[in-house]
Amino acid sequence: MVTFTAYKGHKSGKIQKSTITKPDKLEGDQVLVKITASGVCYTDIHFKTSDMVLGHEGIGVVEKVGPTCKVLKPGQRVGWGYTHDSCGHCQPCLRGDEIYCPQRAMYAEADLDQGSFASHAIWRKAFLFEIPDALSDEQAAPLQCGGATVFNALRAYNTQATETVGVMGVGGLGHLAIKFASKMGCRVVVLSGTESKRAEAMQLGASEFVATKGKKQLKVLQPLDRLLVTTSAQPNWEQIMPIMAPCASIHPLSIADGNFEVPYMPLLTKGMTIQGSVVAPRHVHKDMLEFAALHDVKPVTQTFPLTEKGVAEAMDKLEKGELHFRAVLIAQK
Amino acid sequence: MVTFTAYKGHKSGKIQKSTITKPDKLEGDQVLVKITASGVCYTDIHFKTSDMVLGHEGIGVVEKVGPTCKVLKPGQRVGWGYTHDSCGHCQPCLRGDEIYCPQRAMYAEADLDQGSFASHAIWRKAFLFEIPDALSDEQAAPLQCGGATVFNALRAYNTQATETVGVMGVGGLGHLAIKFASKMGCRVVVLSGTESKRAEAMQLGASEFVATKGKKQLKVLQPLDRLLVTTSAQPNWEQIMPIMAPCASIHPLSIADGNFEVPYMPLLTKGMTIQGSVVAPRHVHKDMLEFAALHDVKPVTQTFPLTEKGVAEAMDKLEKGELHFRAVLIAQK
Repeated sequence: MVTFTAYKGHKSGKIQKSTITKPDKLEGDQVLVKITASGVCYTDIHFKTSDMVLGHEGIGVVEKVGPTCKVLKPGQRVGWGYTHDSCGHCQPCLRGDEIYCPQRAMYAEADLDQGSFASHAIWRKAFLFEIPDALSDEQAAPLQCGGATVFNALRAYNTQATETVGVMGVGGLGHLAIKFASKMGCRVVVLSGTESKRAEAMQLGASEFVATKGKKQLKVLQPLDRLLVTTSAQPNWEQIMPIMAPCASIHPLSIADGNFEVPYMPLLTKGMTIQGSVVAPRHVHKDMLEFAALHDVKPVTQTFPLTEKGVAEAMDKLEKGELHFRAVLIAQK
Repeated sequence: MVTFTAYKGHKSGKIQKSTITKPDKLEGDQVLVKITASGVCYTDIHFKTSDMVLGHEGIGVVEKVGPTCKVLKPGQRVGWGYTHDSCGHCQPCLRGDEIYCPQRAMYAEADLDQGSFASHAIWRKAFLFEIPDALSDEQAAPLQCGGATVFNALRAYNTQATETVGVMGVGGLGHLAIKFASKMGCRVVVLSGTESKRAEAMQLGASEFVATKGKKQLKVLQPLDRLLVTTSAQPNWEQIMPIMAPCASIHPLSIADGNFEVPYMPLLTKGMTIQGSVVAPRHVHKDMLEFAALHDVKPVTQTFPLTEKGVAEAMDKLEKGELHFRAVLIAQK
């Protein structure tokens, strides 16, 4: 048996350092990864009171591979995200939509004894991604879920370079959405509550910045062909619908309870699309990493040690909205 | 000047017979149509208290054409629907999405002095459709809005013959959706409140019929890749979401006030699409008429005379849900 250190949620909301034990022998395409960095995502906050190992933006180094893993070798850098496995034979799997496999193994639903807030983890090679040299561990970590989520909303739904893309919210997801969309050639319009993030949004790649708070009517140079909603609060649709172009798409990307609501008639009369999605299937995830490496799309990060105290501090800052923009836990040498 | 007879809405809700006057001289590609038949759509009910000529599923015979209309000749049969005109130079117009032109002229928004509950109307040739010989006036009328709406939801959003298509509601729109989808090769699953319409739905082309009333859980042989909602009441999503396939689309097709609401998390975690649309752009409308003619897709109709009394009676039956399935007003010779 091998033992790992891992940081779990707890009903008290206080992070628990614990030890997990796994069989020594790797099976099939399993890979033992020594974790070097992990992003902290708002979904981790949702599960901080659950008895499970937290973290799903993992980066590490291959230590050992199972008998059928012919591709990875010890010493290689890999990453993983929200999805750990899928059945491989259903229609979504067969057409490369394995993130929608009804038997998918996903964070917080399966493999609760492993996560990226840990010293090690064992995953199937099939769901690990090689990290391009141009991205450091710290840079690559937030791409595994946050980056994948916003890139997928653009890439998997056929975004054209000629589109005007709105990004609502400048945070962990939003700042990456601005970078990716602008590098795809899109005109990027950032919607944010106040003026405070204007300069940084423009520097990240926005063409236009609109402060929404207290405004009855929003003004944009071009109506939005697409809107990525990265805020946890849902948009004020009375403000938003009039600035959407005919046949525009809306992508709600943050986790929320209850119902998704939009005004009914504009949805119909403008021929609009509401597009749900989660993270990215593997082929899009791989494209995302290559695109990020080629175009220098790197998250703005703030680092914390991958320790009980570091995890608690990063999650606390994330919950209070004090992060700029994505926390990354770094394993101590 | 020429004078027409027309039937208008009125704040009392009682249909008013009235006379409208138009310049004798046709301009540009205008066409004077002598109306022979008109479908009655639920949207007409929405405007029965408005001071406007009702009706937007028109069929008639060309009587006279304007100087630039080179295609149509007197005696030809034509039809029209919800859209009368568009600007011709915006992006939606240029890419064949003219129904989403911000300056479109649509029923109940423009040309309130004309409609298909009338003896004549004058429309631009550009928004008139030649009617295939295989379709009678009575059969062609309900296709101009009802048929166009359901066909467009299928055709414009890339429905594949291998899909399982759900149709909720067996009425004016629903019965045409069943016919079109089954002729497109799809497996059609009809969802209806009670068992009462089972036999007819199967005969229209359904592969499966599910009565929903009082059921906690619905059972279908295959999950639905697409759902066309043709009922005025919105679905019970707790029932519906579990029978939707991964990456499924939902098409709300009836007019409603307020918000469109769906459970938020299934929308995301199943990667679902909510697709708004109205009627059909002209290229889809033309395809629809040819497809209907080729595959014998004809509405099930009930006829009434195109008179004050006939209009009132048809609308009354429609409002009470007593029609089987689409009312058509027939001009008296």
